[in-house]
Amino acid sequence: MHVTSAPAPVFFPAVLMAPAGEGLSLPLAMLVVFGSAKLLAELFERLRQPGIVGEILAGMLIGPAVLGWIRPNQFLGSLAELGVMFLLFRVGLEVKSSELMGVGRTALLVAVLGVALPFVLGWGILLAWGESQVEAIFVGTAMVATSVGITAQVLAAKGYLSSQSAKIILAAAVIDDVLGLLVLAVVSSVARGQVNLLALGSTALLAIGFTFIVAKWGTPTVRRVAPRVQERLRGREAQFAMAMCLLFALSWLAAYLGVAAIVGAFLAGMALSESAGRRVQDLSHGVTELLVPFFLAGIGLHLDIRALAQPSVLLLSLVILVAAMLSKFVGCGLGALGMGRGDAVRVGVGMVPRGEVGMVVAQIGLGMGVMGAHVYGVVVFMAVATTLVAPPLLVMAYRGLPPAEPLEEEVFHLG
Amino acid sequence: MHVTSAPAPVFFPAVLMAPAGEGLSLPLAMLVVFGSAKLLAELFERLRQPGIVGEILAGMLIGPAVLGWIRPNQFLGSLAELGVMFLLFRVGLEVKSSELMGVGRTALLVAVLGVALPFVLGWGILLAWGESQVEAIFVGTAMVATSVGITAQVLAAKGYLSSQSAKIILAAAVIDDVLGLLVLAVVSSVARGQVNLLALGSTALLAIGFTFIVAKWGTPTVRRVAPRVQERLRGREAQFAMAMCLLFALSWLAAYLGVAAIVGAFLAGMALSESAGRRVQDLSHGVTELLVPFFLAGIGLHLDIRALAQPSVLLLSLVILVAAMLSKFVGCGLGALGMGRGDAVRVGVGMVPRGEVGMVVAQIGLGMGVMGAHVYGVVVFMAVATTLVAPPLLVMAYRGLPPAEPLEEEVFHLG
Repeated sequence: MHVTSAPAPVFFPAVLMAPAGEGLSLPLAMLVVFGSAKLLAELFERLRQPGIVGEILAGMLIGPAVLGWIRPNQFLGSLAELGVMFLLFRVGLEVKSSELMGVGRTALLVAVLGVALPFVLGWGILLAWGESQVEAIFVGTAMVATSVGITAQVLAAKGYLSSQSAKIILAAAVIDDVLGLLVLAVVSSVARGQVNLLALGSTALLAIGFTFIVAKWGTPTVRRVAPRVQERLRGREAQFAMAMCLLFALSWLAAYLGVAAIVGAFLAGMALSESAGRRVQDLSHGVTELLVPFFLAGIGLHLDIRALAQPSVLLLSLVILVAAMLSKFVGCGLGALGMGRGDAVRVGVGMVPRGEVGMVVAQIGLGMGVMGAHVYGVVVFMAVATTLVAPPLLVMAYRGLPPAEPLEEEVFHLG
Repeated sequence: MHVTSAPAPVFFPAVLMAPAGEGLSLPLAMLVVFGSAKLLAELFERLRQPGIVGEILAGMLIGPAVLGWIRPNQFLGSLAELGVMFLLFRVGLEVKSSELMGVGRTALLVAVLGVALPFVLGWGILLAWGESQVEAIFVGTAMVATSVGITAQVLAAKGYLSSQSAKIILAAAVIDDVLGLLVLAVVSSVARGQVNLLALGSTALLAIGFTFIVAKWGTPTVRRVAPRVQERLRGREAQFAMAMCLLFALSWLAAYLGVAAIVGAFLAGMALSESAGRRVQDLSHGVTELLVPFFLAGIGLHLDIRALAQPSVLLLSLVILVAAMLSKFVGCGLGALGMGRGDAVRVGVGMVPRGEVGMVVAQIGLGMGVMGAHVYGVVVFMAVATTLVAPPLLVMAYRGLPPAEPLEEEVFHLG
């Protein structure tokens, strides 16, 4: 009779120590990651803190940093990647491209200043610290790219997605990503010692062209084509199936052209924003709810605090963290100052999280053999810590602003 | 300007030949598997055939058997496993445990006869074919386990889940799975040459105890506990998060005790059937819609027709296929004869698909080194072919019976 009532903790150690290939069985890995993320999110909500911080900390807790139950692996990494794709897809569904285009100029200024300042500051600090020129450039590059997923999740949960500042953040994050791609392309070719201007130029042209064309003409095209295709389809949930195909296709195209897959996912959502029905929103929301904890916990999973045991590394980490926060806040805030001080602060804070994008840059540097392990640890710490610090600041920055979409609020909040 | 309009087929070969570790990038792999499954499903619906057959064939088409674009890998395998878990979870949500218990006796008879006949027939044929005793026993075992996912998907899509015969099929499939576990446990220990009766007995007791207890008392327990827990939770979509945790926990417990994870998933759904709200159903339905094509295409992905090039292997495959279909049909049909001829036929046909379960048994045999590669190929062919043959037969068997749940029909059919 003890089968169903056997408490999980008694089983745990034995099962977790199982010598099976990937460590945990699939359902157990799902339970540990998803369950711990939701548990800590609940705890943080009760402490009146953003639940998202709890989900990232859950990854640190179950990961190598503390308990060591779960190690980053390919499957969890893929779920995390899917999770952030669905998150940006969902966000795109709420955003009209015309509104995004309307804030284009401000967003461009926000993005450019928010790229220049962190890059220069990161580069300067590393040089002053006595690290190599190449490492300094890579750290500067890793400090460039905003991880919009964190901010998007907070704004969606609080019902601020359609506020003016949210529009600027989203548009600036897309431009920021394209700029980040170009900086990375230049930096990589400098590090390799061979700069091919023609290749760089065509990369830039393709990336900018793709993003602009899909952002500008995606929505009207889908609005015109979708109904005609749909009325001919016989399958169940055909609209959802088509939406998924568009999501995967644009994500792949974006990644293929060098922009992040999540930019493609966001553009796919935005292209569908005027034609997707309630049903598509609900179904994709289900996938998002399941997978986003894997993205969030996945960020925490990558932090290895042993790298920070050396006092000098820890000090550099803290300096870089402060620099990363201040430079984005000031750079992006300055860019948005024309919208008033309140929105400038919101945009500045909203662009602070670096998350997975900074880690990818650091991994490229590590893979090319131009970045030391301790500098890699510094970048990962900066990436994780900015995602932890931003949500509470963001909630504070938006306090006082009435939620822009009560209806969306309802969708996101009710069980 | 050719960026967005660049036709995928032009890119395809180059990208697909990319020497990257897993072959395809994540979004492209998702697009190829999901897109091709949905495309062939649409094609089959137009030909008035079950879409599910198209999805399985899509796996054969893109897999090693034909185009070779995608190879089975750990990530796709995990998505497939999740897919069939969510499928059974969704089916469980539609089923009341009291109704399942009501057909318990018939289901037990159906399961026992549907296990005995295929086992004896598979064993006999292999011995007559001159294969070894151990291989004969393993093929018999692989012919035992019904893959209820295929039948459940067809019945759900056509709105027959709450018919009497569907109840018997589901209950019998659960019992069938437990019996299959016991047969496999006995066969494995015989093959290893060491039979530990005590271990076998405790395996049996735990598996039966777990299944029976959760099936019988899961629903009332959840109905009593869930509202109290929910009113204390503050997180967004807390009900969905709780449902997911129950799903993963019971799937893991089931797998841990040796029963298939999908039995746990089905029991989790059933336990929630009386307390899960519409929102939980919609959200989990979204995950199901996304992942089920990976389960279906994954079945086709495993077929390697090169193994069937030898005429003698091909002949054995066809003989085993016919034996697998007839023995389940006759065995299960006899067991359900008390319900009338119509339901007996429906139950008999519904239990025919073997799918992934038979393949797992064959892989165990292969892993233990007691089964030759050609016999493995025969079993995989039997497993895939029974899933392809069953859906059209099932649609025929249910023709004339009015759909039992128009409301469910609507949920599954409307876009």
